Formats: sequence, structure tokens, C-alpha cells
Amino acid sequence: MMVEGEEKKALWFEDGKLYMIDQRKLPFNYEIYVADSVDDVVFAIKDMVVRGAPAIGVAAAYGMVIGWDKPLETAEVLRRTRPTAYDLFYAIDYMLEAYYNNEDPLEKANEYMEECIERCRRIGLHGEKLIEEDMQVLTHCNAGALATIDYGTALAPMRVAWRNGKKFKVYADETRPRMQGLLTVWELRNEGIPCTLIPDNAAGFLMEQGEIDLVIVGADRIARNGDFANKIGTYEKAVVAKENNIPFYVAAPISTFDKNIENGMDIVIEERNPLEVKTIQGKQVMPDWINVRNPAFDVTPAKYVTGYITEEGVKTKVEL
Amino acid sequence: MMVEGEEKKALWFEDGKLYMIDQRKLPFNYEIYVADSVDDVVFAIKDMVVRGAPAIGVAAAYGMVIGWDKPLETAEVLRRTRPTAYDLFYAIDYMLEAYYNNEDPLEKANEYMEECIERCRRIGLHGEKLIEEDMQVLTHCNAGALATIDYGTALAPMRVAWRNGKKFKVYADETRPRMQGLLTVWELRNEGIPCTLIPDNAAGFLMEQGEIDLVIVGADRIARNGDFANKIGTYEKAVVAKENNIPFYVAAPISTFDKNIENGMDIVIEERNPLEVKTIQGKQVMPDWINVRNPAFDVTPAKYVTGYITEEGVKTKVEL
Repeated sequence: MMVEGEEKKALWFEDGKLYMIDQRKLPFNYEIYVADSVDDVVFAIKDMVVRGAPAIGVAAAYGMVIGWDKPLETAEVLRRTRPTAYDLFYAIDYMLEAYYNNEDPLEKANEYMEECIERCRRIGLHGEKLIEEDMQVLTHCNAGALATIDYGTALAPMRVAWRNGKKFKVYADETRPRMQGLLTVWELRNEGIPCTLIPDNAAGFLMEQGEIDLVIVGADRIARNGDFANKIGTYEKAVVAKENNIPFYVAAPISTFDKNIENGMDIVIEERNPLEVKTIQGKQVMPDWINVRNPAFDVTPAKYVTGYITEEGVKTKVEL
Repeated sequence: MMVEGEEKKALWFEDGKLYMIDQRKLPFNYEIYVADSVDDVVFAIKDMVVRGAPAIGVAAAYGMVIGWDKPLETAEVLRRTRPTAYDLFYAIDYMLEAYYNNEDPLEKANEYMEECIERCRRIGLHGEKLIEEDMQVLTHCNAGALATIDYGTALAPMRVAWRNGKKFKVYADETRPRMQGLLTVWELRNEGIPCTLIPDNAAGFLMEQGEIDLVIVGADRIARNGDFANKIGTYEKAVVAKENNIPFYVAAPISTFDKNIENGMDIVIEERNPLEVKTIQGKQVMPDWINVRNPAFDVTPAKYVTGYITEEGVKTKVEL
């Protein structure tokens, strides 16, 4: 991805340390968080220094490298950081296999990361065909390079289409409570793609007004029947998009498809700390006495999905 | 409404001045804003010191009293404060009629306010029948006593049901960008009604999980065919409620029904200052360079409405 005119990655590994663009600080400050222990990696995943299903997977793979002296224990603590994103478990299992096969951990983690980047690149190549000149595209949360090391999932088709010279415009949902929409506008601005932020409440209004032609979102886990978990609010957008006959695509690498899960009802939904809702950019914006619920994800049934943009092409239904 | 154990009103007129609970300061601080000129009233409506369609109407009626020396001019500047809420225009016309009939302005404004309160009281009596023991009720924005002087529209049925001894629970959408959901939780807490705040994105998730039994919202303007404008985000909740077979009611006095408007497409939607999105509780939470759109309302087509709770009873379709 471009950051102030330079090619960057969301995270990288160097001299035994894991470097991550600190996603909690953006879009105000571009800072790097350095993890040199398993505990640091656990903190980074839990506190969302690094976020996005594929990026969490890669961070966990490098976390395994750092904790390679106790691989089973490391796997166990990393596994407990977040319950919903499938890539986390996929990456840890990938590294455990390397352990049992006596392979070099750093080589395997690098390979995992390169695969992740390559998958996103190909998601972009397939998905860009869906974007036509002058379209207005909506996305929810941040499924960009920050979430996936490079290219992005939902944002990869936009990156590729833009680099191919297509002109279009993006609407980014704010995505309360953590406002990851700000990460999306930051990424798109760095690419030069016109982007407007809207409150989550305004997405339906724009759809109703005919101002959205296409919706592309990412996914944290996709069940065998095509139901998928993604950032809270995705379900609402999908239902309203269908009601307005707007194509709704999910962009995700094959690693996000969980063969162990029959349908969306089996996906564990993480409920996070209410303080995430009460606090914005470090400032508490509501009184302590308010009761808050903070489910971090929701499940969108497959019937609302027009297609799945994967590294293998755009599929209209899940075929595993 | 109850405020810290005492009966209060959202606004009142005394010795030529209009006193309003400053809704910008809640739920942190309970402060009173005093308007003793038409300009003050104009500011209070525009800046949302006072908000909610019926309360705006009453504030405008008293604004007419304050500017009674130049009634046509006063009517004109008040009319320009907000474009969407019908009560504003209704109240100004009501006062102009008094002017042409040579009636006492204060008496007429008091009468208008008393009627407004009485209508909400009756909305509560009719609407409370919809609330059953142990229900979980969702509301969007604040259509409570703050928005309507006393009782509320959407919150009136909850107040009456609670005072009648029914036990139930309320979910209040945060309602970005201005987070009027905080006003709702503040009001309900003062009444003793259990209430949980959720990010707007979470409403669909709760519906999907079977945790919402009933939705009641207010309205800013209702067209002849039953389409209605309300706070941005209402449309999404209505669509998702219908998809989940959850009854969706609109609570509004007859003064909110605009006979001049055939359907929702004719309702003017106010787009407000992007700073409202960028700033929370006085703190800017996103960089200046971000493009933002801030439509303040949306239109929900009549087909998503189970019924209209009015002072005349619960109607399943609009009959004017």
C-alpha cells in the first residue's frame, strides 16, 4: 500500500521483532509498534494495534516465531486473543504443522505472509472487474491493506481498478464503535481514490437515494453455507442493499472459509469491552452509569450475498 | 418527565423568556438555556439546544411570542431554522393565525404547548397496550420528553407502561452523529426504566438474535401515504425489523402529518454541518482533511410500518 507516496506493509518482521503500523493511532498519527515478546503480540492483537482477519493471522504466525521455544504454549495464548476471525486459528495451525514437520519457523511465517499478500493481489485482479467507471462503492469497516498486510480484501479491487485508470468514488461507513472507517479513508487518500466518510446510519439513506451502486466488504469467517461474520453493522448493510437491489460482495481469501462450520449460527461472536463504545480517541464521550453492549461482529446470511471475491475468482456461491 | 425525582418540562416560558433544558449538554450536565430574543430562539433551534419535532414547534411558538412586534418577519426567520420537521411550520402557521385573528399570543402559545403535551400523554395511553411484560423494545434517536416537552412520542408508551407496573427493557441506538441515544438513556434512567445503549450498527445483530420484540420510533414529518421522515438511520432499522418480522411502530401526534405532501419523496432532507460528524462532545475525533456527508434524516416508506401510534389511537395505515 502507499503511505505518503512510499510502498509500505501493515507489518513486517526484522531481527527477531515484529513491527506493526499502530492502527489505534491512525489516521492522526503514523506510528510503529514493536513487539519482541509473545506477550507483546498478544497485547497487539487484543488491543487492536493490529486488526483485520488476515493481518491478525500474519501477526500470530510471527508471534509463533517469537515464541518458538514453547510452540504449544505460544499457540494456546495466541489462540485466546480473539474468538471470531478464522485466519487467527488457521495461521496458528499452519505454524504448528511446521513445528511438527521440523521446518524453519521464520521461513514458514514469511511464506504465510507472502501467500496472504498474493491472495489479496489476486482478489484485486478478480474483483476490479466489478467496478465500472463512475460507480459509487460502499464499504464497511476497514478491509484494506492495514487489515491484510498489503492490497486489502474489500479494498484490493478498488486499488487495482484505480491503478488501471478507472474513475469512481467510495463511501466509507464510519463503523462505530471503533471507527475503522477512518482507516479506510486514510488508506484510500494515500492511494488518491476519492472517498467520503458517512455515519453508519447514512448508508441506507444513500442506497435509497440511488447513490450506491455496489457494496464490497471483507469477512472474518465464512461458514460452509456462505454465511459470514464481519464487523458489526455489516448485516444491516447487506439487508438494506438487497432491499434496494444493490450488488453486495464479500472479498476474502480462501483462508477465511472455515470448513468446520456448517452455517453462521455456529460462529462465535465476540462481545468486547463497553469502554470501546464509551471512549473515542481516548476521550470518554458518555457517562459511566450508561449500560452498553458491544458485540464486535454480526453474521450475514448467504442469501444477502451476490458473490464472494476470492483469489480464485468471483464465486456466486460457496464451493469448497 | 422525571428529572432527579422531580417533575420537569423540556421547556417553559416565564416573564417574557423561553427556558430550555440544553440538550447539547446532556447527559453530562443538566443546564438551562435562556432565550430572550428571536435570535436566541433561532440559535437554539439551529444549534439543537432544543430538538425533536414537537419541541421545536413549541419553541417556535414561543419565539413568535417574543417577536410578536414583527410577526411576519419573526415567522420568516424561524421558518428557516430547520427544513425537515413539520411541527415547526405547523406551529408558526398556528401563531400567524392567532395574529390575523387578533388573539393573545402567549395564551395561544401556551395552548399549543398544552395540546402538544396532552397529545403525547394520549399517545402513551394508546401505545402502552403494545408493550407486553418482559419485552425488549428498541428505539432510535430521542423521541422522548426532551423532544416533545413532556411524555415523549416513542417514549410515551414506555413511560405509561412502566408507571402501570409492566416490566420490560429498552435498547437505545446511539444515533450517530449527534448521539441522541444518550438523551434517551438519560430520560429512561430518570424514570427508572432499564435501558442499554448500543452502537447503531448493533441493532440488526440484536434483531437477528431474537433480542428485540418491538421497535418504536418518532417522526419528524409524515406524508399522506404514510411514508415518514425521522432521524438518519431509522430507515435501516425499519428494513431490518421487517426482515426479522419485528413490529415497527411510529409514534407521532397528528401535527406531524403533513397533508401537503403526497409521499416521502417530497420531504426535504436536511444535510447538516460535517463538523457534527467530526466532533463529539466538543472534541474533534477525525482529521480535517476527511470528506464527510451528514444527512440528518431519512425517509422510511410506509410499507415498513406496522402502525402509527397517535393521540387518536393506533392506526395501521394513515387515515387523514
